[in-house]
Amino acid sequence: MRILHHLPLSPFSRKVRLVLSEKRLPFELRTEKLSERRPEYLALNPANTVPMLVEESGLAIPDSGVICEYLEEAYPDTPLLGRTLGERVEIRRLVAWFDGKFNLEVTRNLVGEKITKRMVGRGNPDAGALRAGYANVSGHLDYIGWLAENRKWLAGANLSLADFAAAAHLSSLDYIGDIDWSLSPPTRDWYARMKSRPSFRSILNDRITGIVPPPHYADLDF
Amino acid sequence: MRILHHLPLSPFSRKVRLVLSEKRLPFELRTEKLSERRPEYLALNPANTVPMLVEESGLAIPDSGVICEYLEEAYPDTPLLGRTLGERVEIRRLVAWFDGKFNLEVTRNLVGEKITKRMVGRGNPDAGALRAGYANVSGHLDYIGWLAENRKWLAGANLSLADFAAAAHLSSLDYIGDIDWSLSPPTRDWYARMKSRPSFRSILNDRITGIVPPPHYADLDF
Repeated sequence: MRILHHLPLSPFSRKVRLVLSEKRLPFELRTEKLSERRPEYLALNPANTVPMLVEESGLAIPDSGVICEYLEEAYPDTPLLGRTLGERVEIRRLVAWFDGKFNLEVTRNLVGEKITKRMVGRGNPDAGALRAGYANVSGHLDYIGWLAENRKWLAGANLSLADFAAAAHLSSLDYIGDIDWSLSPPTRDWYARMKSRPSFRSILNDRITGIVPPPHYADLDF
Repeated sequence: MRILHHLPLSPFSRKVRLVLSEKRLPFELRTEKLSERRPEYLALNPANTVPMLVEESGLAIPDSGVICEYLEEAYPDTPLLGRTLGERVEIRRLVAWFDGKFNLEVTRNLVGEKITKRMVGRGNPDAGALRAGYANVSGHLDYIGWLAENRKWLAGANLSLADFAAAAHLSSLDYIGDIDWSLSPPTRDWYARMKSRPSFRSILNDRITGIVPPPHYADLDF
């Protein structure tokens, strides 16, 4: 069986879970405690990161960007990276935006400080980082809302990896109650469409010990 | 004419310059002062980052990862991402390693603190970051040396984007004198092979006002 080593609130892991489900590729989830630095895990992925996908053949694929490019090449049905060169540039640009800029400015400052830091035993959240994270959220919600209002999906006419990258980050932040959906109705409407997809179910059903998500988290009509 | 907006010491810009040259695609370099936040630049690349490639058709492609995937698809001659799925995973894994982990642990702490920070007017280098950068270099040189000793090129039998990603980071660090080549003879031998490629010439000829590289920087027999 295909195995995805992950952490439940890692947006990068969530993006890969969504892509695997959209492509109808069955997989088993394994939570990887990175702080244990397991030798067997490091042998496959010396960077000691999640997600890492291990195919039934034994092929180990670390890094969510590498995994998504691999899945698109190995399983081209349900294409998520676009067809023309221009579409592919726009989709990858937005994936880089969410996994790079959005992650740095928002997710890392909030999910990273509140959750990841505690899990790896690196102390309390940094107040400056939290402030920066909260200050940056609304501009990003506006940008997503602008894309959602001007296009059918975030990168254009078709649902793509850009939507899943964005939704993965927002879902992690939403779990810890850090998204105020009233700030951007178009973003909320787009996210409601994402949430109602079957691929989203397992993510909405995830519960992390000791952290209770807000009531609207798994609600499709929030 | 194809235009690459860049910064001379950005390893991400250097990687794209190397790839364009290897693929024999002519281009013009434009230094982009990101701190000016030019509206015309932001319109094409709201993330306000270098590199950004603008094709003659007007297609604007930001982010070095997006650019390299685009170039491979648009100009498949001189392939740099491998042929089999396994080769492509290994090449992209190493590119993610150098542009992610290596950049975070080494380049950002040294080139970022000493050069980029000054250029964008964000003050003096942070002593802790410099210490971390210096502490992390030697382990990374060992890893590159291990790859170079066990494989013909870093990702396997063929020269690939992994070699250019690694060489781009090392060349930026070498310009500011922060690589002690005696630490890893196999890394030095591999880098000597990279340096002697015609695609490397323009990078070795770059000079940044006010920063003189060490004498060995452009020397092919260093």
